[in-house]
Amino acid sequence: MNYKIAVLGTGNVATHLVPALEHAGHTVTEVYGRDLLSASKVCDKVYVAEAKDDLDFSESEAKLFILAVSDSAISEIADEIILPEGSILVHTSGTVPLSILGYSSASYTGILYPLQTFSKGREIDFDDVPFLVESEDQETLQHLKKVAKSLSDQVYVVKSKDRLALHVAAVFASNFTNHMLRLSEEIMGRQGLDFEMLKPLIIESISKSLEIGAKRAQTGPAIRGDYNTLDNHFQFLNYNEQVAEIYRLISQDIIDVN
Amino acid sequence: MNYKIAVLGTGNVATHLVPALEHAGHTVTEVYGRDLLSASKVCDKVYVAEAKDDLDFSESEAKLFILAVSDSAISEIADEIILPEGSILVHTSGTVPLSILGYSSASYTGILYPLQTFSKGREIDFDDVPFLVESEDQETLQHLKKVAKSLSDQVYVVKSKDRLALHVAAVFASNFTNHMLRLSEEIMGRQGLDFEMLKPLIIESISKSLEIGAKRAQTGPAIRGDYNTLDNHFQFLNYNEQVAEIYRLISQDIIDVN
Repeated sequence: MNYKIAVLGTGNVATHLVPALEHAGHTVTEVYGRDLLSASKVCDKVYVAEAKDDLDFSESEAKLFILAVSDSAISEIADEIILPEGSILVHTSGTVPLSILGYSSASYTGILYPLQTFSKGREIDFDDVPFLVESEDQETLQHLKKVAKSLSDQVYVVKSKDRLALHVAAVFASNFTNHMLRLSEEIMGRQGLDFEMLKPLIIESISKSLEIGAKRAQTGPAIRGDYNTLDNHFQFLNYNEQVAEIYRLISQDIIDVN
Repeated sequence: MNYKIAVLGTGNVATHLVPALEHAGHTVTEVYGRDLLSASKVCDKVYVAEAKDDLDFSESEAKLFILAVSDSAISEIADEIILPEGSILVHTSGTVPLSILGYSSASYTGILYPLQTFSKGREIDFDDVPFLVESEDQETLQHLKKVAKSLSDQVYVVKSKDRLALHVAAVFASNFTNHMLRLSEEIMGRQGLDFEMLKPLIIESISKSLEIGAKRAQTGPAIRGDYNTLDNHFQFLNYNEQVAEIYRLISQDIIDVN
């Protein structure tokens, strides 16, 4: 089933989503941006789509309106947008509650959250992007599942109460792993060592962890109970108290859970 | 140049290294294990190699002796092994100092450290494994570089004073990223959520981080300065004080360094 869809936003998610929607057989009717030129640039990625910088969608043919803007902009646009009767308004955030759309002129509301990190200039294969859908209206939920399944093989219905847990887990899995790499880069850099030499280890460690599970994949001084090495490392890091404390605390947690 | 090499050890490193050495054109003369059966199993991976469970190598034809055993076993074996005149003894550890081999009967000593995590049943392509070599003797260093280059495209001469930094960096890059995934798995599991849905995000985050650098790749509530979300997440984690503190401390560090 193909949908007429308007996309609001011109950032990384919108830029990736608009062509993916058309590729999946849907029609992108309009792209909204505060800046008309940015909206036009996103429109250029598909055959027909009107660039708009106003929020009056009363004449739109779209059934589904996807709010792909930053978390802080969602409520303002949701409050101001003028939607046709029977329309569905969704946002794409993993953090913002569904209730934020409650004051909009939409007949139905929901969430269509692509659980992936999008960056300008990096291609994302949507087949591999898990889509998390949510709505209090069963028919709306079916529509969102259809749209999500047209984009991706992995579609999950997630309840509001689970979204916080999911987001916390994503912070550990993505932002915090990245910060561990950042600290590793800095330690190498300080010593004039080439971070390149750690990359094969990183790739193999993560692959192994995803394949056999992080519990079984763990190695290193903490899980070996090698207190001598832990202490040497902690002393080494004394140039940065906070990083030393991060080392101590994560090592302690590895010891405690194993 | 092809070497005659004896390998001491029957663990993951030895098991991967022995066939790789033969594949690179060297001759593995002996494999030592405390347990003769284990040594025989490793020998089975190559054409000719004698399994041994005693440390008398005085009649060995090998020039290079590679001690691929656990850190705690290195010193005992190094002290007991009987080596022929002119032989080079190296260990494969990233943690243990070179000086531990100083009381051995070897004429020359060094380190040949494959910077990778080895596991039973997981194939490792040695081409991609960085080898870190070290020796106080220049001629020995040349031999070790030749052997390492025959196995891998990435060979680095690392000085003793850099090895500690390198190991600390590796702990952050490998053990601690793995623990972040472990904590993420647990948060998902507690909530009955499928950890599978986070895997595409993890793969893309790490790929992006390795490509553009962790500093530029960082996203999430901490770097956005989204204190509201940080506080919600911290409260959510109150069932485990230590994990909540890990969340707080890493978030603080992300804020501080950016």
